[in-house]
Amino acid sequence: MKRDIFKNISPLDHRYSLNEEEFSNFSEYFSEEAVIRYQAVIELALIKGFAKIGICTQDMVKEVEDAIEKLTPEEVYKEEKRTRHNTRALVNCIRRNVQNKTKPYIHLGVTSYDIIDTARALRYKEATKKLILPTLIALEKVLMEIALREKETIQIGRTHGQHAEPITFGFAISEYVSRLGTRIEMIKEKGGNLRGKISGAVGAYNALSLLVPDPITFEKEVLLEIGLRPATYSNQIVEPEYLNDFIHAIVSCFGVLANLADDMRHLQRTEIGEVGEYFSEEQVGSSTMPHKKNPINYENVKGLWKAFMPRMMTLYMDQISEHQRDLTNSASSRFTDEIIVGLLLSANRLTRTFQKFTVDRENLRKNFNLSKDKIIAEPLYILLSYYGHPDAHETVRKMILKMQKEKGTLWETAKKEEELIPYIERFTSFQREILSHPEKYIGKAKEKVEEIVTYWMKRLNIK
Amino acid sequence: MKRDIFKNISPLDHRYSLNEEEFSNFSEYFSEEAVIRYQAVIELALIKGFAKIGICTQDMVKEVEDAIEKLTPEEVYKEEKRTRHNTRALVNCIRRNVQNKTKPYIHLGVTSYDIIDTARALRYKEATKKLILPTLIALEKVLMEIALREKETIQIGRTHGQHAEPITFGFAISEYVSRLGTRIEMIKEKGGNLRGKISGAVGAYNALSLLVPDPITFEKEVLLEIGLRPATYSNQIVEPEYLNDFIHAIVSCFGVLANLADDMRHLQRTEIGEVGEYFSEEQVGSSTMPHKKNPINYENVKGLWKAFMPRMMTLYMDQISEHQRDLTNSASSRFTDEIIVGLLLSANRLTRTFQKFTVDRENLRKNFNLSKDKIIAEPLYILLSYYGHPDAHETVRKMILKMQKEKGTLWETAKKEEELIPYIERFTSFQREILSHPEKYIGKAKEKVEEIVTYWMKRLNIK
Amino acid sequence: MKRDIFKNISPLDHRYSLNEEEFSNFSEYFSEEAVIRYQAVIELALIKGFAKIGICTQDMVKEVEDAIEKLTPEEVYKEEKRTRHNTRALVNCIRRNVQNKTKPYIHLGVTSYDIIDTARALRYKEATKKLILPTLIALEKVLMEIALREKETIQIGRTHGQHAEPITFGFAISEYVSRLGTRIEMIKEKGGNLRGKISGAVGAYNALSLLVPDPITFEKEVLLEIGLRPATYSNQIVEPEYLNDFIHAIVSCFGVLANLADDMRHLQRTEIGEVGEYFSEEQVGSSTMPHKKNPINYENVKGLWKAFMPRMMTLYMDQISEHQRDLTNSASSRFTDEIIVGLLLSANRLTRTFQKFTVDRENLRKNFNLSKDKIIAEPLYILLSYYGHPDAHETVRKMILKMQKEKGTLWETAKKEEELIPYIERFTSFQREILSHPEKYIGKAKEKVEEIVTYWMKRLNIK
Amino acid sequence: MKRDIFKNISPLDHRYSLNEEEFSNFSEYFSEEAVIRYQAVIELALIKGFAKIGICTQDMVKEVEDAIEKLTPEEVYKEEKRTRHNTRALVNCIRRNVQNKTKPYIHLGVTSYDIIDTARALRYKEATKKLILPTLIALEKVLMEIALREKETIQIGRTHGQHAEPITFGFAISEYVSRLGTRIEMIKEKGGNLRGKISGAVGAYNALSLLVPDPITFEKEVLLEIGLRPATYSNQIVEPEYLNDFIHAIVSCFGVLANLADDMRHLQRTEIGEVGEYFSEEQVGSSTMPHKKNPINYENVKGLWKAFMPRMMTLYMDQISEHQRDLTNSASSRFTDEIIVGLLLSANRLTRTFQKFTVDRENLRKNFNLSKDKIIAEPLYILLSYYGHPDAHETVRKMILKMQKEKGTLWETAKKEEELIPYIERFTSFQREILSHPEKYIGKAKEKVEEIVTYWMKRLNIK
Repeated sequence: MKRDIFKNISPLDHRYSLNEEEFSNFSEYFSEEAVIRYQAVIELALIKGFAKIGICTQDMVKEVEDAIEKLTPEEVYKEEKRTRHNTRALVNCIRRNVQNKTKPYIHLGVTSYDIIDTARALRYKEATKKLILPTLIALEKVLMEIALREKETIQIGRTHGQHAEPITFGFAISEYVSRLGTRIEMIKEKGGNLRGKISGAVGAYNALSLLVPDPITFEKEVLLEIGLRPATYSNQIVEPEYLNDFIHAIVSCFGVLANLADDMRHLQRTEIGEVGEYFSEEQVGSSTMPHKKNPINYENVKGLWKAFMPRMMTLYMDQISEHQRDLTNSASSRFTDEIIVGLLLSANRLTRTFQKFTVDRENLRKNFNLSKDKIIAEPLYILLSYYGHPDAHETVRKMILKMQKEKGTLWETAKKEEELIPYIERFTSFQREILSHPEKYIGKAKEKVEEIVTYWMKRLNIK
Repeated sequence: MKRDIFKNISPLDHRYSLNEEEFSNFSEYFSEEAVIRYQAVIELALIKGFAKIGICTQDMVKEVEDAIEKLTPEEVYKEEKRTRHNTRALVNCIRRNVQNKTKPYIHLGVTSYDIIDTARALRYKEATKKLILPTLIALEKVLMEIALREKETIQIGRTHGQHAEPITFGFAISEYVSRLGTRIEMIKEKGGNLRGKISGAVGAYNALSLLVPDPITFEKEVLLEIGLRPATYSNQIVEPEYLNDFIHAIVSCFGVLANLADDMRHLQRTEIGEVGEYFSEEQVGSSTMPHKKNPINYENVKGLWKAFMPRMMTLYMDQISEHQRDLTNSASSRFTDEIIVGLLLSANRLTRTFQKFTVDRENLRKNFNLSKDKIIAEPLYILLSYYGHPDAHETVRKMILKMQKEKGTLWETAKKEEELIPYIERFTSFQREILSHPEKYIGKAKEKVEEIVTYWMKRLNIK
Repeated sequence: MKRDIFKNISPLDHRYSLNEEEFSNFSEYFSEEAVIRYQAVIELALIKGFAKIGICTQDMVKEVEDAIEKLTPEEVYKEEKRTRHNTRALVNCIRRNVQNKTKPYIHLGVTSYDIIDTARALRYKEATKKLILPTLIALEKVLMEIALREKETIQIGRTHGQHAEPITFGFAISEYVSRLGTRIEMIKEKGGNLRGKISGAVGAYNALSLLVPDPITFEKEVLLEIGLRPATYSNQIVEPEYLNDFIHAIVSCFGVLANLADDMRHLQRTEIGEVGEYFSEEQVGSSTMPHKKNPINYENVKGLWKAFMPRMMTLYMDQISEHQRDLTNSASSRFTDEIIVGLLLSANRLTRTFQKFTVDRENLRKNFNLSKDKIIAEPLYILLSYYGHPDAHETVRKMILKMQKEKGTLWETAKKEEELIPYIERFTSFQREILSHPEKYIGKAKEKVEEIVTYWMKRLNIK
Repeated sequence: MKRDIFKNISPLDHRYSLNEEEFSNFSEYFSEEAVIRYQAVIELALIKGFAKIGICTQDMVKEVEDAIEKLTPEEVYKEEKRTRHNTRALVNCIRRNVQNKTKPYIHLGVTSYDIIDTARALRYKEATKKLILPTLIALEKVLMEIALREKETIQIGRTHGQHAEPITFGFAISEYVSRLGTRIEMIKEKGGNLRGKISGAVGAYNALSLLVPDPITFEKEVLLEIGLRPATYSNQIVEPEYLNDFIHAIVSCFGVLANLADDMRHLQRTEIGEVGEYFSEEQVGSSTMPHKKNPINYENVKGLWKAFMPRMMTLYMDQISEHQRDLTNSASSRFTDEIIVGLLLSANRLTRTFQKFTVDRENLRKNFNLSKDKIIAEPLYILLSYYGHPDAHETVRKMILKMQKEKGTLWETAKKEEELIPYIERFTSFQREILSHPEKYIGKAKEKVEEIVTYWMKRLNIK
């Protein structure tokens, strides 16, 4: 069933799906085709479970395996049109392609959501391992490379948008190595901890109790077959908090990317100009202002974050399901895939952007020089304090206010202040060195970059 | 460019797009094809504006008109791949199909967002008129019919999920006639009040000032041509609050539908059973529990509301755009269409559901009878008060607590209470009538239904 | 009942309540004391209504009036502790202070939410008129003054954080005159359109029908007495959409303030420095960096917006109330006041900040000069197009890419290009003037400021 | 500085703070007084760190310890009024009460947020241990008791609000034992994993590098002193994701409570009546309907969830902080405490409510009996399948549709169907037993309750 993509409603299905390889990777896990494919895997696991305890034969398993391979979403949807029940449609389609004696064992003793929720858990678990983590680690690696490469590149640190103390550009980037690192770990943990269920319509194993001697163990073994575990409890659905935590990890990771994008956007401001993207000669920056070079990739990531972050509220609302479940989370949870795709799109875009990323060391130095002198205020007041000045903070603050009207560097001025000389004489040569050379006042920026990159390479097993 | 719909990521583009007529209606306004079509309309309006003041000729207008008719999204996207700028791509595609002398007048003096934002305003304005309002009014009409039909059908009113005072089922439905009525009005107002702009890259008419004598008037006339107005101010984009209000109206309307769906869900509970949907004999209620008749349509509407309501936050975040605009609202605003589609899907579903809606009068009566006696507590205490009893509320409350252990109706008991007799003697026959027949204690329920339906038929011009 | 404010949990009740006059204004409308006071007003309006149709006497009205004046929140809460019902507690407290014969007429025939919802509507309506609108108009006036004062002050317009075309600083500020203007209008409209109800426990006038001949008219008259109207429909509560729209207007206005704050924050960046706040000599910018001057007021406003904006979701969730109402909106709606207070705090802070606001014309000019030359790209390409150049956009774009490696101004270079001369010769003297003086390329910036300020002064009746 | 609580704006500071013991517990951790107290603890830890490496003396530590004990919020706020900087105000207040020679070591080499962020981490960590976990475990224990007590009490399981298969009431409650269990674990983990920082204004240890030989180790030791660890990275602030995860755990736990409250609300519906709360004779259920017994405690919990859940969006927005930080998260993060207090209020209320919780076994049985017969549909169709019936699901579904018009039980009817007899003959006696006694069709409900309670008692170390 084909359709012109420009007739699609979601930007995910027209505008953001034009890179065919990327879209195909997403679609592998996040499409109706994938949903049905994974559901069939659970139906297969179930019959394998029956065969294992001797309720049906291995030949029957083989038959189901073959039937599943032939399955197409088209026929399932066609059948659903008749039955108006999607799981029943799936089951009917499988049953069609097996012998009569095998038919009863398909979907035997289970409810739709044993299949649907378990298939979702497996699908997200495998997507985590094979698509989400590799995507994020690709970005992490690019960031690590930049952090190490620029670990000694001086940059003025900024707080409140104001020049503060100096750092290195690599240190600024190492923030994202670390924060993305924690998010990758959390996604890994929570994506690997999604749970399934084979406990029937209200979760009490009512039906399975008629058929198998120990349904609680049976559930564990069916799930184990596909690498999952049950939650401590289930009713018609799996406890929602496992998915809730996973999507929190996704959304929270998205926030890290949005912050990174925002930082880069601002560093690309005309007046700052510390970073840039390589632009192809063909590319049009603006339809009316041909000279502009807009940070469109970062703007896109921030925009996608704004589109997807609020959807975490849907997950929080979906925690509420009346009694042994109402079905109001059925439609809403179908959209959960989109949040993950939003993150992946953004991560891919950032990775590509950072691969053609340029650091303008001249502008970094120029901006640093703007505040070169004032930077010394902090170490000066601290050392004055340290060597016993009773009110160093106030003294330096007033000295600066005064200097705005006069000339000279703060350190030169300070050295001439009668009142300060007794304290300054006690400064060590290392301390004087820093006060004379503000660009050396970067603390442990460089060492910290190395520590952070080493730490996260190890934790994330990156080579 | 065609694709298997089951490979699509968004449920809007696979699961919820299977009704071809419905999807085609949505796609007419809410797809990339529609976006491009409307943008071309703005480019045309612009050149018409130039022709009107004699800057170019009517023949050139005709040329552009023809060029636009041939335009396909495919070629625009192909061109965008080269230029990496969507509006420039559109302009290039139009220019290709006109003579050289006409080319300069296309997109002359304007910026991308003069086209993009204005096209969106026009697209939403027309969708409001031709699709959104008719969809909602279809639902409103069904609700009006049910309200009138059931205006005398007794129902126990419920507050806190507890039986309270009696109403009629039509009165309960008239709530939604009224609330949906206010939302239809607001959508109409706000959808009709979306604004465009033809004011250039930063909104100061910089470029147009070079070309036309009075660009502020020129803007007004270009917009008037397509039935729009400018906002008081624009920079690169239209003031975001006009769209913000429109989507608030959409989301707030969605909330009314969600409440309606929730009410129906609960009235369909096994123990209550006051309403139902007609089920086809083919339809499968549950894969394992063939006897169940689930309120899946109402659940679906509630689910869609949970999926879409939080997205209003995206609109609120998109109010913030730095200086003469940053582009972080570009990606995010592409998803705004989906919210509208979510509402339309839900409204259509409710309309269809209410068309096969059944009211179970037997159960309505049965439930009413459960509380038939206790209902009298309120009028009794009020009349006792009214006729001078100093502490009627407490007295009745205690009488009820006592009655839980004994038997008889409250009215019978009251009439026997020595202390109450002097007051009861003063009750009018109308008042006694009500106390003896709790089913008559429905106040003005019936009259109110008629008033509400009449009022909204007139306001919304429904026949 | 007094408490140390530093023991309070909400920052609204400790940190942001230290300005006594400001807090006292808020508390006048947004406190439990205010809630109770307004509820008593509704109880009074009700008895006035009874007196008017001769059900009770004017003396009784006077008695209730006196009783209400004596009422304290302490006694109501003390009574609630006993009855565990807040409206009943209020009623009991009023009844205590009237004669026995008057007692029955208090709260006669109504339900708690006739009082609570109506009192809220009145409270918000009066707060809108007496507190919210004056607060916002004070800010609007300051913005208008700055816009007019700086209507000719050149500023480089910025899109994507990149220099674009020039505007004036007054034009940039007039954005907020206009956007705040629309929000003030909407708050006025929606705050003035809040509805009350006097329709009883399930909204069908069940009880009142026993007592008054025409309860629908009676409701209208009781509400009219206090300047309110009923909604078309009510059950136990007023239709939630009226409040929903009002708070949307509040939240949407907050977004405008947040954008204004963000713009100012960024213009205060060290590298940009176009605006500033006056700092007292006592004020400490940073505990360790005495030289910094942080945009803390703008940061605070952005922060409050982040704290309050998401709460609109509570209002959207509160649209859903089961049947004739559930009470799950009781606790949640108690927090609605806080959103309004958040907006007022922010508006006051911005007004104060703009009163000591400084514009650094030197930096505005310096930043403009950075892009002075490139600015000409747009008018140049447009005029080339206009005079027949077949591919002006591309030509200018390439000329700029080339110029990054060479020297000279774009206009000088263009004038020397063989290929362009035939077109340039056709430029008018006005057009050449602009191309030679980029600072004149501000379109209608100045005229637009005047138009906007004049328009909004008139619409908002500001003198 | 005292104030009448009814003048307070936040319901947390008037209405929901009337239980003095409860409020005092909250205020201990979540008030401005607590904030300042914890900040002073960090200042003390810092000077201890200096003493430990010989930079200052133990006597100085003692002096600071004494000074801190005398500290009051009043004086800090008074000082802040002068300095307009809260941390500087705190430091000044401490310095006032130590000798001159000690003064320089206070706050030496650190920035405000070394104190503020670290103090918040410590405060939340201790609140988690001493207040949040005990509060939640108290609720968990009450739920465990009810689950065990009612583990055999038959209840009809409900999906879609429709009767499904039977469970036990204890099984229904064990859902919340399990889900609350996972949330308690996550709160414990994330509350125990909050991080501090002592790394200076931009996080590169710029200032401390002047003073201590190894500032990275120094940071670790200062934090270790108070039981905290640093994050891998910090700039002016701690990486926001640690707090983000903690508040997600809080909000997600709130969702579990809201679901529990919703379930109980619905089970208390007049038509269902399976659970109740003990009402005092004094308590007024409704001001006009003295017979009602409203589920106000559950409604309150749902309402608080609606008020607080959306605030997670504030935390997600606060992940974004420009460069080495902007201060837009300062105001917003002050409101984070309120979310925690909202959860604690709700948990306490549920605990109190479940302590006077009544289960109406008669109604449970009555409701079960409504569907007693239809329940058999599922096991019947499953067993027919199992014993080889080729189309059992359809057959049973049709049998039920037929039965709605006829009489008799499903099992009796089935046994008479010619077509089914060959299959039914193969049913085991256990299977026949279940089909004859629907109340035995509860699967492993009872065993599961025991397993869940045992599991979580052990995991959470509950005795």
